[in-house]
Amino acid sequence: MWSYEAPLRDMQFVLEHWLQAPDTWQRNPAFAALDLPLAVQVLEEAARFSQGVLAPLNGHGDRQGCRWQAGQVSTPDGFVAAYRAYVEGGWPALACAEEQGGQGLPQLLDAALQEMLYASNHAWAMYTGIAHGAYLCLKAHAAPWLQARYLPDIVSGQALPTMCLTEPQAGSDVGLLRCRAEPQADGSYRLNGSKLFISGGEHDLTANILHLVLARLPDAPPGSRGISLFLVPKQLDDGQANGVHCDGIEHKMGIKGSATCSLVFDAAQGWLIGDVNRGLAAMFVMMNSARLHVGLQGLGHVEAAWQNARQYAAERVQMRAPSRPEEVAAQAADPIRYHPAMRRVLLELRATSEGMRAIGYWAAHLLDQAEHDPHSSAAQLAPLLTPIIKAFFTEQGFRQASHALQVFGGYGYVTEFAIEQTLRDSRIAMIYEGSNEIQANDLLLRKVLADEGRAFGLLLAELRTEAAQGGECGECAGFAQALGSLCDALASVVEAIGERALDDSEYPYRAAPDFLQLCGVALLAFAWARAARVSRALPEDDPLRAAKLQSAGFFFDYLPSRLAQHLGAIDGARAALAFV
Amino acid sequence: MWSYEAPLRDMQFVLEHWLQAPDTWQRNPAFAALDLPLAVQVLEEAARFSQGVLAPLNGHGDRQGCRWQAGQVSTPDGFVAAYRAYVEGGWPALACAEEQGGQGLPQLLDAALQEMLYASNHAWAMYTGIAHGAYLCLKAHAAPWLQARYLPDIVSGQALPTMCLTEPQAGSDVGLLRCRAEPQADGSYRLNGSKLFISGGEHDLTANILHLVLARLPDAPPGSRGISLFLVPKQLDDGQANGVHCDGIEHKMGIKGSATCSLVFDAAQGWLIGDVNRGLAAMFVMMNSARLHVGLQGLGHVEAAWQNARQYAAERVQMRAPSRPEEVAAQAADPIRYHPAMRRVLLELRATSEGMRAIGYWAAHLLDQAEHDPHSSAAQLAPLLTPIIKAFFTEQGFRQASHALQVFGGYGYVTEFAIEQTLRDSRIAMIYEGSNEIQANDLLLRKVLADEGRAFGLLLAELRTEAAQGGECGECAGFAQALGSLCDALASVVEAIGERALDDSEYPYRAAPDFLQLCGVALLAFAWARAARVSRALPEDDPLRAAKLQSAGFFFDYLPSRLAQHLGAIDGARAALAFV
Repeated sequence: MWSYEAPLRDMQFVLEHWLQAPDTWQRNPAFAALDLPLAVQVLEEAARFSQGVLAPLNGHGDRQGCRWQAGQVSTPDGFVAAYRAYVEGGWPALACAEEQGGQGLPQLLDAALQEMLYASNHAWAMYTGIAHGAYLCLKAHAAPWLQARYLPDIVSGQALPTMCLTEPQAGSDVGLLRCRAEPQADGSYRLNGSKLFISGGEHDLTANILHLVLARLPDAPPGSRGISLFLVPKQLDDGQANGVHCDGIEHKMGIKGSATCSLVFDAAQGWLIGDVNRGLAAMFVMMNSARLHVGLQGLGHVEAAWQNARQYAAERVQMRAPSRPEEVAAQAADPIRYHPAMRRVLLELRATSEGMRAIGYWAAHLLDQAEHDPHSSAAQLAPLLTPIIKAFFTEQGFRQASHALQVFGGYGYVTEFAIEQTLRDSRIAMIYEGSNEIQANDLLLRKVLADEGRAFGLLLAELRTEAAQGGECGECAGFAQALGSLCDALASVVEAIGERALDDSEYPYRAAPDFLQLCGVALLAFAWARAARVSRALPEDDPLRAAKLQSAGFFFDYLPSRLAQHLGAIDGARAALAFV
Repeated sequence: MWSYEAPLRDMQFVLEHWLQAPDTWQRNPAFAALDLPLAVQVLEEAARFSQGVLAPLNGHGDRQGCRWQAGQVSTPDGFVAAYRAYVEGGWPALACAEEQGGQGLPQLLDAALQEMLYASNHAWAMYTGIAHGAYLCLKAHAAPWLQARYLPDIVSGQALPTMCLTEPQAGSDVGLLRCRAEPQADGSYRLNGSKLFISGGEHDLTANILHLVLARLPDAPPGSRGISLFLVPKQLDDGQANGVHCDGIEHKMGIKGSATCSLVFDAAQGWLIGDVNRGLAAMFVMMNSARLHVGLQGLGHVEAAWQNARQYAAERVQMRAPSRPEEVAAQAADPIRYHPAMRRVLLELRATSEGMRAIGYWAAHLLDQAEHDPHSSAAQLAPLLTPIIKAFFTEQGFRQASHALQVFGGYGYVTEFAIEQTLRDSRIAMIYEGSNEIQANDLLLRKVLADEGRAFGLLLAELRTEAAQGGECGECAGFAQALGSLCDALASVVEAIGERALDDSEYPYRAAPDFLQLCGVALLAFAWARAARVSRALPEDDPLRAAKLQSAGFFFDYLPSRLAQHLGAIDGARAALAFV
C-alpha cells in the first residue's frame, strides 16, 4: 500500500541546475574526479537499496518493533540482512576520506543518500544515521591511536557508534549530567552512570558498538564546563564484554524499529576524546552533523507523504469536483485530486518537499565547500542554516504528513495504509538532537544576535543575489521581486529585534520560534525563486520545467500569508508572557 | 502519569457568567426547575464518573485495544463495568425528554458531560457519543410505534445505537453508497450490503445494538436523492439474531479501545425511519448532533493536553530561564514552565481550551433555545456554528496536543507518559463525521453564501454587541475594540468572496478552509472579549479573574498574526490552483 520511489529526477535537477554542483566540484581538488554522471550513478544505486531493501521493511518494522531480553536487543526481522547489504554496498564509507578507507565523495551526495534512507525507513536509518557524525568527531578530536583503532571500523560499517548525552534528569540541559569517569593508571577511564534515550544503544546489527559518552571527571567544575567526551566500546579488544548494559528499551509513538535504550555504565572502560572538560565542543562536531541529518528526516517524511498522497488522490473517486482539467470528461464522481482542497494540499506537499530538498542539499554542499576552504562564506553560512534546517524541516515533516493523512480520509487513520506511521515516525524529529525550541534560541540568540548579524548578512546577500538574477527573467521576475521584498523585511525584523532586546533582554527568546519559522519560509522562497529561474535551462517541453514554474507560482501566491503570520507573531511577542 | 481533573471551576464560570445560563433557563418552561446549584451538582457527579471511572481506563484501553473473534468484539478490560456505572448513573437520559423517561436537562449540560467523557477516555466515549443524536433522529423522524419500541432502550442505555453511512467506495460521498433495502409484505425491509468504519458496530457493552443504516430501495433514483434510513437492530424481538455480522475491526492510529467495525448486512430486517428517499435529511439530525460532539472531542483533547503539560512543566527542571517570577529565587536550573517558549505554549493551551469551552457550550445553549423557540435567532446560529466547531475545534485538538507533547521533550514520545496517546486519539476527529474540508465547504458555500449571509449577519451582530458592551469596560476596552475591527474585516471578506465568486465559481472552494479557520479565530476572540468583561463580576482577589484577564491579553496579543495569516491565504486563494 505505502510505497516509496526515490525522486531521482528532482535530485538531479538540484545537483545540476539549482546548485550547479559539478562546476564547484571541478574547482575543488578533493572532488576533481567527480562529475554528474558518476554522481547520478551513486544516487541510482542508493535508490535501488532504499526502494528495494529498506522500504519493504518499513511497515513490518513498525508492527514488530524491537524486542529486549536480558540486556539483548533484537531488531525487527530483516533489519540485520538490510544492514549487511548496506555494508556490502559500501554506503558507510560514502563521504569518508580516502585515507581512512572512505570513498571521498561529497557530503552533498551523502545528504541525498540520507534523504532516501529516512524516507524509506526512518527507524532502520536511526542505526546508521549517527555514524558520519561520529566519524567527523573522532577525526577532529580523538588521539591518533584511537582514530587508527576505531575509524576503520566506522568507515567499513563493522561497528556502529552511538551518541550518549541524555540522562533522566539531563535532557535539553546537558550541564545537569552526572555520569562519572575515573582516570586509570593506563590512561583509560572507568565510567559509571546511566544514560537514557540512546538510539541504537544496543542491537544485533554489529558485534561491536562504539558509545560516545559525555561524563564528568572527579574534579570537574559543575555545569557544562565540566563535561568530557569518551569512547566506550561495547566489546574490548581482549574479547571481554565492557561494563555497558542495556537495561531496557522505550515503547514509543513511532520509529518502533529503532531501539531507544537505557544504558548502564558499570566501571566501563573508555578513552578520552579531545581535551578534558571540553567534551561538549567535541560532541558538537557530531551534533551539527546529526542536526542536518534530522532535518533530512523531515525532508524524507515530506517526500514520502507527498508520494503516497499523490497516488491515493489519483485513485480515490468521490463526488464531483467544481472543476477538472479540460481533457477530463465529467463523471458521477471525480478522483479527489481534482477537488480544490486536495489540489491545495498536493501542491503544498510538492512545493515543500522540492523546496526543502534544494535547501537541505545546499547546506550539505556548503559543508563540502567549508571543508575545502574554512575561510569561505560557506563556512559561516552552514552553522547558520543548521538550526533552521533541523527545526523548520522537522516541523514540516510532521505537518505535511498530517496533511497527507487527511487526503486518505478514514483510511489514513488505519494502520494498513501506513501514512499514519509516517505521521508517528515524523514527530520525534521535532524533539531530539536539541528540541526545536532550543534550535530557535540557538539561531536567534547565538547565530544572529551574538554574531551581530554577520553570517545572517551573508545569507541575505545570497538571497539578494538570487533576487537580482531572477529580476531579469521574464516569467519569474515576480518571484524575484517578492524575494527581494522579503529580504528587506528580514533585515528590518532583525534590526528591530536587536534594538528591542536592549531594553527587554527576554524579548529575543519570545520572538525566536517565529523568527526561525520566518527564516525557514524565506529559505523556501529562495529555493523557489531560483528553481523557477534555473528551470529555464530545461527543454521547453520538459514537464519538469512546467511543474517547477507551477510550484513556484503556488508558493509565492501563499507566501504573503505565511510572512504575515510570523511577522505578526514576532510583533505580538513584544508583550510580556505571564507565568502560568 | 497522565491524569485528568474536570475543570469544574471554569465550566461554572461559563454557565454562570459567560452564558448567564440560569437567566435563560428561567425564561424557558422546559428548564424552569433548573438552577445553577443543581447544574453544578450534575457537573460534579459527571466529573466524579469521568475522573474516577473513565480516566483510569484510558491508557489501558489504548494498550489492550479491542479484540475481534468470530464476529464477536471484546472491548478492553473495564469498559463493560464502566458502561454499567454510566447507565446506573442515569447519564444516557441526561438531556432526553421526560416523556421518554429522560431527565429533561439542557443540551448545555450534556455538552459539559461530553467534554469530560471525551477528555478522560475518547475511545470509551465513542460507544455512547452517538446515542443522543440517534435519540433526536428517531424522535423527529421515526414512526410512533418505532419510537415507542426503541427510544426507551436508548434513554435507559439498555441498547446503544450506531450510525451506518460509510461503505468502502462511499466515504465523503454518501451518494455512491450501494447497500440495498427490499420492502417486505409486513412493512419491514430486508437489508443487504457492507458498511465500513462503523464505530461501535459490534461490542460487549449492551446485548442489543441499534444500527441506523443508510440504504437504497430497488427503485430509488441514483445519488444522494435515492437514499433511505433504516433502523436495524442486532437482536430481533423474537429473540433471533438479525442478519448483521461484524467481519472485522480496524487497526488504527488511536482510539484503539473503540471498535471500528466492518459490518455485513445479510437479509437483515429493518424498519424505515422517515420518508422513502429522504434518509439523508433524517440522518442529518443525528449528524449535526454528532458534529457538535466531535467538536467537543477537540475541546476534551485540548483540556487534557493543557492539564498534563502544565503539570509536567511545573515539575521538570532544566536550564536557567532568562526570567522567573519575582518571588522565585535563582537556581542552577528552573522548572521549564518559566522558559519563554514553554510559557507561550502553556498560555496558548489555556486560552484555547477555555475559549473553546465558552464557544462549545454557547452552541449547545443555542440548541436548547432553538428547541424552545424554532423561530429564534438561536435556531439560525446553531447550524452556522456546527461546521466551525467541528473543524476548528478538532484541528485545535490535534495541534495543541502536539504542542503539549513538545513540552514533555523526549518523554512526550514515550508511551508511558501517554500524551502521545492524546495526540494519536485526537487525529481522527479531523476526519470523521464529515472531514474538515467538507465542513469548510458546508460553512462557506451553503451556510454563508447560499444563505446570502443572513445567519452570518446574526453571528456578526452577536459579536458586535459584545464589542459594544466591552468598549465601556476599562481594562478590556482594547479587546472589545479588536473584536469590533475583526467584525469589519469578516464582513468585508464575506462580501469580497461573494463578489469574486460571480466571475470565478471555484474561488469559494479554494477560500473555504482558511475562511473556516478565520471564523474559528473570530469565535475565540468573541469568547475572550466576553470572558474578560464578565470576569469583572468575580471578586477582585479571585485568581480566576486575574487569569481570565491574563489569557485575554495573551490571546489578543497574537490575534493580529492569526488574522493576517488567514486573510492572507483567502487572498492568495484568488489564484487558480493547478491540477497536479
